[in-house]
Formats: sequence, structure tokens, C-alpha cells
Amino acid sequence: MIRNEVFSCFVFYAVLLVIKMYIIAIITGQVRLRKKAFANPEDALRHGGLQFHREDPYVERCRRAHNNDMENIFPFLFLGAVYCLTGPSLSVARLHFLIFFLCRVLHSIAYLFALQAPTRSVVYSVAQIPCVSMAVQILMTVAAYA
Amino acid sequence: MIRNEVFSCFVFYAVLLVIKMYIIAIITGQVRLRKKAFANPEDALRHGGLQFHREDPYVERCRRAHNNDMENIFPFLFLGAVYCLTGPSLSVARLHFLIFFLCRVLHSIAYLFALQAPTRSVVYSVAQIPCVSMAVQILMTVAAYA
Amino acid sequence: MIRNEVFSCFVFYAVLLVIKMYIIAIITGQVRLRKKAFANPEDALRHGGLQFHREDPYVERCRRAHNNDMENIFPFLFLGAVYCLTGPSLSVARLHFLIFFLCRVLHSIAYLFALQAPTRSVVYSVAQIPCVSMAVQILMTVAAYA
Repeated sequence: MIRNEVFSCFVFYAVLLVIKMYIIAIITGQVRLRKKAFANPEDALRHGGLQFHREDPYVERCRRAHNNDMENIFPFLFLGAVYCLTGPSLSVARLHFLIFFLCRVLHSIAYLFALQAPTRSVVYSVAQIPCVSMAVQILMTVAAYA
Repeated sequence: MIRNEVFSCFVFYAVLLVIKMYIIAIITGQVRLRKKAFANPEDALRHGGLQFHREDPYVERCRRAHNNDMENIFPFLFLGAVYCLTGPSLSVARLHFLIFFLCRVLHSIAYLFALQAPTRSVVYSVAQIPCVSMAVQILMTVAAYA
Repeated sequence: MIRNEVFSCFVFYAVLLVIKMYIIAIITGQVRLRKKAFANPEDALRHGGLQFHREDPYVERCRRAHNNDMENIFPFLFLGAVYCLTGPSLSVARLHFLIFFLCRVLHSIAYLFALQAPTRSVVYSVAQIPCVSMAVQILMTVAAYA
């Protein structure tokens, strides 16, 4: 299956997006250290005292970016894998994966740099188009069996 | 694999649940616009001013519904797919998927309409039964190899 | 596929981690009942009155533990499954899965018992090593096709 061109194309972008999510987690941790804003008292104690068990607006921003990734990239991992099984052409499939990938990278940039609205909302919405397209194509393929 | 009846039955309900999650995301966005309650200052600025960078109880309710979906529907996507590989009968498998699907749809309705407790907790618990059942059956299948 | 030794080894640990997440959800619910701290007014009403619609530090701790699991165990479910398709040796693959599994169990223990820092951060970081290793190996396998 990994030798199937469509599937390996999907896996390529999917794994890059997972790594992108790991990077946001690392950024969140670094911002917590730099701003001294820890979610847990035991972490605050280790880094100067309980007064650093507190919230920080930029830490919360990082966490919203990460949460939005979970809401959207995790479903893509499922939809993309099943979509590959429906036998799409490589060029059409690659277009789906590439649009989603680029939009989600831009979404993280727009979030972390607080780019002017509606940049983030627009890339979020465009990223949903290939997802809904894959969902519809999957449903059409399996509807006969369910 | 997509021509396997059990797997296509699973995929049918799984994709509908992913779409259900997308709908909750859309509802959250619409409630934010209607109630003017934005998580990010840049969004508030575009829609009237920084005073709309604020929390709203119904927006938080939508977010809890979405988060609970992530905690439960994402594991189902994994368990259901692997469970199909264990070779269950179509009728038993369909019962697992259907119970989970119906309970999670009712869970969203109970959450968004704030139905009287313990409606939401009951459908949440019933939805867990097919998941635990699938988990146990998978473990029994693979235990010999691990 | 379920008869493949590497895949069934992966599935074994993956399903145990999903069950571990379910247990954290159950703990969160029990703590909410014991501490009378409910996220929803309808739940508070059923358990004594609206004054119990409130936050509790230990409930929030449970929720952070669960959220961190979602951020890390869900990507593992994807990476692990795809990694199995790249044809690793059983002993190397088992080492990846086992390190991740043990570290994530320790992570939950460190979170729920508020163990002294940096216990939790260390096991979190060690758990990421097999994930990054699998991500890199997958990318090397599919890079030629993407």
C-alpha cells in the first residue's frame, strides 16, 4: 500500500502536518519558559516560584493554534487515508492534499503572528474544501454498502 | 478493502461523524459572530472593536461539545478501522457502529440544546460500550502476537 | 494485516493507550462528582445547585492530562500504523512502541499525581523520540513518490 503513489503522496503531506503540530507544541513550551507562565504549579516551582503558575495571552494563542490543528488535521489523517482507497487519480488527489497542507501551514503562521483578520479564517475555510470534497467522494463510494 | 462490507459500513458512519464535527465548528463560528465574542483580538477588531475579544457561555458550550467529540470520535476512527480487520460479522459490526453513531449525534444535540441532565451523560456512556467492546475484541485478536 | 506481527504489536499498545485515555475521562468525571465542580449548569443543577457550576484545580489538571494525550497519542495512532507499512523489523518496531507506551503511562501518572518537575516533561520528551523516528523513517520511504 505504501508503494501506491496516491497513498504515499498523502502520507508525505500528512506526516509533515504532524511534524508541524509537534513544532507548535515545542513553541508553546518555549514561550511558557520565556514568559514564565506555567499551567502547573510543579512547573512554576521549578522555574522560580508559584507566582509563575499563571496564564499568558501568547501561550493561550499557541494553545488555540494547536487545538485548531487537532480539530482539523486529525480528521484529515482519517479522510485522506480512506480517500486513497477510493482510487482517485494522482493529480486530483495530490491537489486535495496540497491545498490542505499549504492552507494549514498558512493557518499556523496567521495564528502565531496574529495576522490581520480575516487571513486565518480564509485559509481555514479553504483548507476545509478538500476535506469536504474527500468526505463526499468517500460517502458516494461506500453508500451502496452501508 | 473499501469493497469489504464491514469496512464500508464503518467508513459510512465514521465520515458522517467527521462531518458532524465540522458542523459543530461552523456553529461555533456563527455563534461567535452573532454574540460578538471572539477568542482573538484581531478577529474582534475586524468585527467592531477589542471589547468583543471576550468569552461567551454559549461559545464555551459549543467548544466543550467539540472537545468531547475529539476525545471520543477520534478514538472510534482508530478502533473501528482496526476492528474491521478482526473479521467481525456484518450485523454485529453494524450494531457497534450504529449505536456509537446515534449516541454521538444525540450527545451533540443534548450538549447544544443543554438538555436536562443526565441525558448527555447517558448517551456518552452508551456510546462508550461499542468502543470498549471493539477494544476488547481487538486486544483478544492481537494478544497472541504482542 | 492484523496477522502481521509488527502491526499486531503496534495495535496492542495503541489500544491500551486508547483505554488509558478512556480511564482519564472516567477519573475526570469522578473528580467532578466528588469535588462538585461541573462544566455545565444542567449538570450542577442535578447535583445540588448552580453554585457547583464552577472550576476546580484538580479537574483542570485531569483535563490538561487528557488534552496532552490527544496532542500526542492521536498522532502516534497514525504514525505507528503507517510506520508498520514501511516494513520495519519486529524488534526495532516493538522498541518504538514500547518506549512510547511506557512514557505515556508515566506521563499520566506524573500529571495526575503532580510529581515533581521535570518528571512529566522528561517522559513527554522521551515519548516524542520514537514518534519523530517513525515520522523520519516514513518520510524517507515515501519521499521518492511524493
